[in-house]
Amino acid sequence: MVTKNQIKKIKSLRLKKNRLQLGWFCVEGLKIVKDFLNQNNTLVVLYTTENQVHHFKDYSTPSKIVVTSQKVLDQISNLTNAPEVIAVFEQKQPDLPNSTTLGNNTSFLVLDGIQDPGNLGTIIRLADWFGITNIICSLHTTDCYATKVVQASMGSLARVSIKYQNLSDFFTKNKLPVYGAFLEGKRSIDVAIANKEAYVLVMGSEAHGISSEIEAFVTQKITIPKSNRDSNIESLNVASATAILLSQFSV
Amino acid sequence: MVTKNQIKKIKSLRLKKNRLQLGWFCVEGLKIVKDFLNQNNTLVVLYTTENQVHHFKDYSTPSKIVVTSQKVLDQISNLTNAPEVIAVFEQKQPDLPNSTTLGNNTSFLVLDGIQDPGNLGTIIRLADWFGITNIICSLHTTDCYATKVVQASMGSLARVSIKYQNLSDFFTKNKLPVYGAFLEGKRSIDVAIANKEAYVLVMGSEAHGISSEIEAFVTQKITIPKSNRDSNIESLNVASATAILLSQFSV
Repeated sequence: MVTKNQIKKIKSLRLKKNRLQLGWFCVEGLKIVKDFLNQNNTLVVLYTTENQVHHFKDYSTPSKIVVTSQKVLDQISNLTNAPEVIAVFEQKQPDLPNSTTLGNNTSFLVLDGIQDPGNLGTIIRLADWFGITNIICSLHTTDCYATKVVQASMGSLARVSIKYQNLSDFFTKNKLPVYGAFLEGKRSIDVAIANKEAYVLVMGSEAHGISSEIEAFVTQKITIPKSNRDSNIESLNVASATAILLSQFSV
Repeated sequence: MVTKNQIKKIKSLRLKKNRLQLGWFCVEGLKIVKDFLNQNNTLVVLYTTENQVHHFKDYSTPSKIVVTSQKVLDQISNLTNAPEVIAVFEQKQPDLPNSTTLGNNTSFLVLDGIQDPGNLGTIIRLADWFGITNIICSLHTTDCYATKVVQASMGSLARVSIKYQNLSDFFTKNKLPVYGAFLEGKRSIDVAIANKEAYVLVMGSEAHGISSEIEAFVTQKITIPKSNRDSNIESLNVASATAILLSQFSV
């Protein structure tokens, strides 16, 4: 039995202030929920149907698995088509490795104000693919626990550590080389091929790029050259640019 | 004065069947509309406010520029926040250069069933950036004149030629090398660096990849290696993968 109050509480997680207050977030769909369980995230509660409950029969705390009707799942879901599995997890406060020691081979992706949840989700998925397990987000970057981010990350959010903090605090302690994506800079592939150490890559917001405050910490500006000189296209989408740069740094 | 019937007709363009029947599509926002006008697309009608009409004072057919209220634009718009400029253009039926002659230095991007409008828009923007002006879409690829595609392409749709056709017809006549993105294949960067000729790059659908019918035409399967071997991430988003491959082929 799922009470109206419980449904209301889960639904309230669509707002950031409620997610922050409770320290929870919502994950929808069998595959993504399994990814979060496999990465030892702390489950608050999981709602599923009679049909799908067998997927969770080995879960260590069976009392947290609630079997309910599709109708209730439809009420809880933030998606147009509610899946048969919806889970609530505790938000993590990751302790990231520090970047004050060179040679530990840990790279960082820094996001300076990404606004679009779809872009953030795609970037988290890219970081996971390219083995960047540490993402630092400025305090004005969109919340990684929003529904659209969680769903666009396709479970990668479960595997990547994301920390929201004042970027100046991060950079004043950082000792790694800092590459920043700009419209003018060194050809990114040359820089990437020359770089064999751990690094920090900074990507700016969709509308404003890297802020001038953070630009001061960038040791090498890099750019993705435009092949089509006749085109008046001004920039690439930030998720596309991140895809290209992370792939070049991983070559 | 904009009549109710006119508003209804413009609004009807949110459906593909109406876009096909009228041969029209809708573009919203000053910057994108200007891109389409600058690329000599045929304007059907343009609605704008008193505030913004000065941007179009040099347009050759002033009778097609209609000044109206923001309230009317709110009614016409397909976006959550209606802009001050909305235009209707005629769809183009592009004659693409053929790929039956080698050495003409024209490359093609082939999309085999892309479903997500945001992905298609992002891919069109990437093609524009990397100088691929010819895109062939399978008949089951999402319509490039849908609102979300037009807006995500950020005006690049005005500069890139897109043709919907039976892909087998295209490939049986094609003489260029055909690279296809697969989860298993040769390391894409090696192939790209070795390739200095015009090429065809095929990207498959989000859910099913390249269909087996089209796989038969692929002369070289390529893949983007996953750096994070511990991760159980299965694939990259198709727009991210297209970004990486086009950037590598343009090196």
